[in-house]
Amino acid sequence: MTDWLPSLKTETPQQGFELAIMLARKGVAYTQPSAEIRKDLRPKYEADADSLTLASQVIAIHFQTVALANNHWK
Amino acid sequence: MTDWLPSLKTETPQQGFELAIMLARKGVAYTQPSAEIRKDLRPKYEADADSLTLASQVIAIHFQTVALANNHWK
Amino acid sequence: MTDWLPSLKTETPQQGFELAIMLARKGVAYTQPSAEIRKDLRPKYEADADSLTLASQVIAIHFQTVALANNHWK
Amino acid sequence: MTDWLPSLKTETPQQGFELAIMLARKGVAYTQPSAEIRKDLRPKYEADADSLTLASQVIAIHFQTVALANNHWK
Amino acid sequence: MTDWLPSLKTETPQQGFELAIMLARKGVAYTQPSAEIRKDLRPKYEADADSLTLASQVIAIHFQTVALANNHWK
Amino acid sequence: MTDWLPSLKTETPQQGFELAIMLARKGVAYTQPSAEIRKDLRPKYEADADSLTLASQVIAIHFQTVALANNHWK
Repeated sequence: MTDWLPSLKTETPQQGFELAIMLARKGVAYTQPSAEIRKDLRPKYEADADSLTLASQVIAIHFQTVALANNHWK
Repeated sequence: MTDWLPSLKTETPQQGFELAIMLARKGVAYTQPSAEIRKDLRPKYEADADSLTLASQVIAIHFQTVALANNHWK
Repeated sequence: MTDWLPSLKTETPQQGFELAIMLARKGVAYTQPSAEIRKDLRPKYEADADSLTLASQVIAIHFQTVALANNHWK
Repeated sequence: MTDWLPSLKTETPQQGFELAIMLARKGVAYTQPSAEIRKDLRPKYEADADSLTLASQVIAIHFQTVALANNHWK
Repeated sequence: MTDWLPSLKTETPQQGFELAIMLARKGVAYTQPSAEIRKDLRPKYEADADSLTLASQVIAIHFQTVALANNHWK
Repeated sequence: MTDWLPSLKTETPQQGFELAIMLARKGVAYTQPSAEIRKDLRPKYEADADSLTLASQVIAIHFQTVALANNHWK
């Protein structure tokens, strides 16, 4: 896999949140490397409230990490 | 997406809690960008105790981050 | 919503635990604002072991936050 | 409820682990105050592997808090 | 129960990981003290991917605690 | 088991993420030591969105630990 995570630093909290989203998706992509299969899973996944909440939870955990790495953008 | 997270700083703990709620919802909105689909999911979601607890959990994780960013409003 | 969280400070660890419980419930209440619907959900919820454990988990996450805000009452 | 949590301090890591267990159970007891109902739930609960793992998870979260409160018993 | 957790200190990260596994199992053992019942649960448990991931999650939470207690073996 | 975790230190954030993936898998492997059974579980597991999100969550927890051990590669 190419270099996709040079740093945890971001300029703004929002960019940090978007980095957290990318990290959550990378966790899925490393586990299921087929982009085609991941795409097939999206319709069911995106229409299930608990699946969405669970995805939001993983983002929340990564956002803790990214926020700490950026000293909470203080 | 427009600029929606300029800072993790809030004046009060309660505003911090409400920011945590917004972060939890943004995690869902980035994953399912259609406001219409998210609205369709609400009735079932809001009437299921475990779904609500799971939502509360994501808020709790974000509240840890926001509280730390605000030095726990000490 | 009226002012319900003036501070994360409590005098004792037990009061901190009770604050964590309130925070967990507030996370639910912001998501499902109808007190009536929440009340309807209680019987099923309170008689399901996994639902109770999940509720206990959210309390645990908030208690981490409250304990840290109080320097663990040292 | 009587005073049940005077401190997060324990003499040993093992006592800290046992305090974490108590905190996990208190989270359940505050949510379902009936000792009788909780007792009724135990047989099914204690014979389900995922229920046990979920209970172990709540203990793990509380143990993080207790360990930090005790400076990891260093 | 005999003394099983004299310290959170380990010599290596790997020993710390193995301590985290023991802590996760102890959380289960305190909740279901019967070794016989726990043994009966293993076959189903060990052949279910989500059960294994959930077990791995509890280990991950404890490993955070153990790693911090060891200053990340720096 | 042979020595598989000499250190939590990595040169880059991406290597840290990949270490977090290894830790998540080791948590499963210690619980289910049979590589054959784990392999049998993969097809169902890798085609279920929630299973993938749950795996991503465990990675996220470990990444918190690894990032902290590396001072977030600052």
